[in-house]
Amino acid sequence: MPLTRIAVRAGKSAEYRRALTQGIQRALVAEFNVPEDDIFMAITEHDESNLVYDRRYLGIERSDDFVMIQLTVTNSRTQEQKKALYARIADNLAEHPGVRREDVFINLVEVLKENWSFGNGIAQYAL
Amino acid sequence: MPLTRIAVRAGKSAEYRRALTQGIQRALVAEFNVPEDDIFMAITEHDESNLVYDRRYLGIERSDDFVMIQLTVTNSRTQEQKKALYARIADNLAEHPGVRREDVFINLVEVLKENWSFGNGIAQYAL
Amino acid sequence: MPLTRIAVRAGKSAEYRRALTQGIQRALVAEFNVPEDDIFMAITEHDESNLVYDRRYLGIERSDDFVMIQLTVTNSRTQEQKKALYARIADNLAEHPGVRREDVFINLVEVLKENWSFGNGIAQYAL
Repeated sequence: MPLTRIAVRAGKSAEYRRALTQGIQRALVAEFNVPEDDIFMAITEHDESNLVYDRRYLGIERSDDFVMIQLTVTNSRTQEQKKALYARIADNLAEHPGVRREDVFINLVEVLKENWSFGNGIAQYAL
Repeated sequence: MPLTRIAVRAGKSAEYRRALTQGIQRALVAEFNVPEDDIFMAITEHDESNLVYDRRYLGIERSDDFVMIQLTVTNSRTQEQKKALYARIADNLAEHPGVRREDVFINLVEVLKENWSFGNGIAQYAL
Repeated sequence: MPLTRIAVRAGKSAEYRRALTQGIQRALVAEFNVPEDDIFMAITEHDESNLVYDRRYLGIERSDDFVMIQLTVTNSRTQEQKKALYARIADNLAEHPGVRREDVFINLVEVLKENWSFGNGIAQYAL
């Protein structure tokens, strides 16, 4: 159910980018109760001029390895679950592929259950 | 009014991608009462490592021709209209360019009418 | 806090694209009280077949220099602030890099304060 968009600087290996998607997915499974095989993610790679971010906002030092993650999810999670998700994503990506926790930017967009179709033109999650 | 993002694997012809945008737009016109010329869409093309999706989630068999569609729309549609939109998009894309219905993933993000400016710095839909 | 996505036709100079990001950021600072260094933006460059828009919708004449801007922001602004933001973005981009005001398309997606993590796995804006 999450639709995940990941923006990174170009030049990372396929293995590195796979580790990003897997680390985010494991966090979604652990904290948002997302099924393991419910994974839908698009990565865009950007040159320096096309991924713009402040390197000190809120006193957090960001590097060239900055990762911008935007997850569209159903609006059924508590604030505690969201906090746990952020922590878990940062933990997972720090472990593998080794992203500095400062470089992990996350934003959630929330939608209704009926706002998804996983194929066949059907709203599988609608009530 | 919809802002549509389409993610597909790289390598499809311009004609194929044009058929995607036209099929989605015809569905929006038919089911969401969107004006025919109210079309604003961005396509991103991804190599295999940058478009990640499960090939069996919910028992739906997805192929390399998977299409991820995210539509940002005004929050004025009923659940019935949303269901009709999903069905119509899948039907239209199955007909032309011939996307398998299993490969059509759709997500809606809803916003207020006042959240759009179509040019000239004006909120044309604000009340 | 805003996560800004900018889609433009490929081929613009880095200076031109930098002027887009700076003009949008100055508008956010002026009208949405965004801190100057709270800037997180991703630009995608598209060939003609991958950036699809009507050239006359609502009687507004759009050119090849069309800019599609989608801003995800916290849901704390009034309609008046939104109108002021649209006008200011169009003004700023008209001044530099010289985008025609007709070519500036803007959409806002609104989320809760708790939906952001700026690094370190923490929800810095959560109450």
